[in-house]
Amino acid sequence: MNQMTQDTAADRSRPLERDETTNLISSDKVDGTTVYATDGEKIGHVDHLMIGKRSGRVEYAVMSFGGFLGLGESYHPIPWDALDYDEDKDGYVVAIDKSKLEDAPYYMKGAAPPFDAQYGSQVFGYYGVIY
Amino acid sequence: MNQMTQDTAADRSRPLERDETTNLISSDKVDGTTVYATDGEKIGHVDHLMIGKRSGRVEYAVMSFGGFLGLGESYHPIPWDALDYDEDKDGYVVAIDKSKLEDAPYYMKGAAPPFDAQYGSQVFGYYGVIY
Repeated sequence: MNQMTQDTAADRSRPLERDETTNLISSDKVDGTTVYATDGEKIGHVDHLMIGKRSGRVEYAVMSFGGFLGLGESYHPIPWDALDYDEDKDGYVVAIDKSKLEDAPYYMKGAAPPFDAQYGSQVFGYYGVIY
Repeated sequence: MNQMTQDTAADRSRPLERDETTNLISSDKVDGTTVYATDGEKIGHVDHLMIGKRSGRVEYAVMSFGGFLGLGESYHPIPWDALDYDEDKDGYVVAIDKSKLEDAPYYMKGAAPPFDAQYGSQVFGYYGVIY
């Protein structure tokens, strides 16, 4: 936790000294990027990101799973920190089994949740992202 | 500076306890949002964001200034922290005079810079974003 806090402070306080400044990605490239389960199976793609207006932090990547589970177009918000970018796959890997996605928080097109603290708690808790 | 560092650490370490969790914005809404100068003049719109793949931090909002300065389609990367969201305007305000934009770093369509440390230093320095 301390290490994470330090890294985070460093991220913003010295962004120009990081190697990761060469590891930027454009939002219009993120949108549409494939998301894989840990077993390598494609489970969807990033539809859009939810970003803190003031913090500039990407809080959620919202996956689209068109037709998955027989639901029609549905959206699963996944904490950004639950996604690992895999350069070989050129996509994101989420540490969850496809079968477990049935229980993951989702919403239908046109019925977006408030993305408030209570909803965040549900999503972050589901993916086991502990801060 | 200390305050900023603390805020930053808090942003990531306790995102669910912040009021700002209700202040999220979708990436597809950010893209296209108008950018104003401090005098209220429209100076362009957000074309896309440049995001740290691992940090999840929005580093730059890349403005499009179609035809501005007689240049054709040009892009000006602006540090996210140099943009203030104005709810009344429903747009971002950048603390720079429109006339000064002529000297701001920009690139032409299809000729994106490396976005490395050296380039970042130039952009961050220009907008006076001190970390």
